[in-house]
Amino acid sequence: MIFSVQVKVMPLKDLLDPQGKAVMGGLQNLGLSGIADVRIGKHIDLQVEAGSREEAMATAEEAAKKLLANPVMETFEVSVM
Amino acid sequence: MIFSVQVKVMPLKDLLDPQGKAVMGGLQNLGLSGIADVRIGKHIDLQVEAGSREEAMATAEEAAKKLLANPVMETFEVSVM
Repeated sequence: MIFSVQVKVMPLKDLLDPQGKAVMGGLQNLGLSGIADVRIGKHIDLQVEAGSREEAMATAEEAAKKLLANPVMETFEVSVM
Repeated sequence: MIFSVQVKVMPLKDLLDPQGKAVMGGLQNLGLSGIADVRIGKHIDLQVEAGSREEAMATAEEAAKKLLANPVMETFEVSVM
């Protein structure tokens, strides 16, 4: 069975996010007020072939730890649809 | 009031996603089998100051249309936490 697993990878809260800061500046230049902060990360959709939801989740977590997220700078969250 | 609004920007389904394909190759080289497809997009957290949930959502949608997503290549989804 194929499970659709979502992995959200975000920069750690304590770190500066220069990409987010640049986008915030761009939004303000476009006249969009009221945006207090912007943080940008990655959203990864994995189609995982597995016997169960738990197995699919375990595969995705291993993928996130080994390749998708850099634990020095990023955190990740895994969820199965 | 500050609302935390999530914008998910993904490449259109009909388009190739070379970044996703490269990551899929990397996962296979690491010995992670069972991953049938990978698609990579952006996850943007906006902190929006607004009077209501609807107003925060409207601001985030305008931001997505004007700057965060490129409608030629990407789709986006907005959700308020």
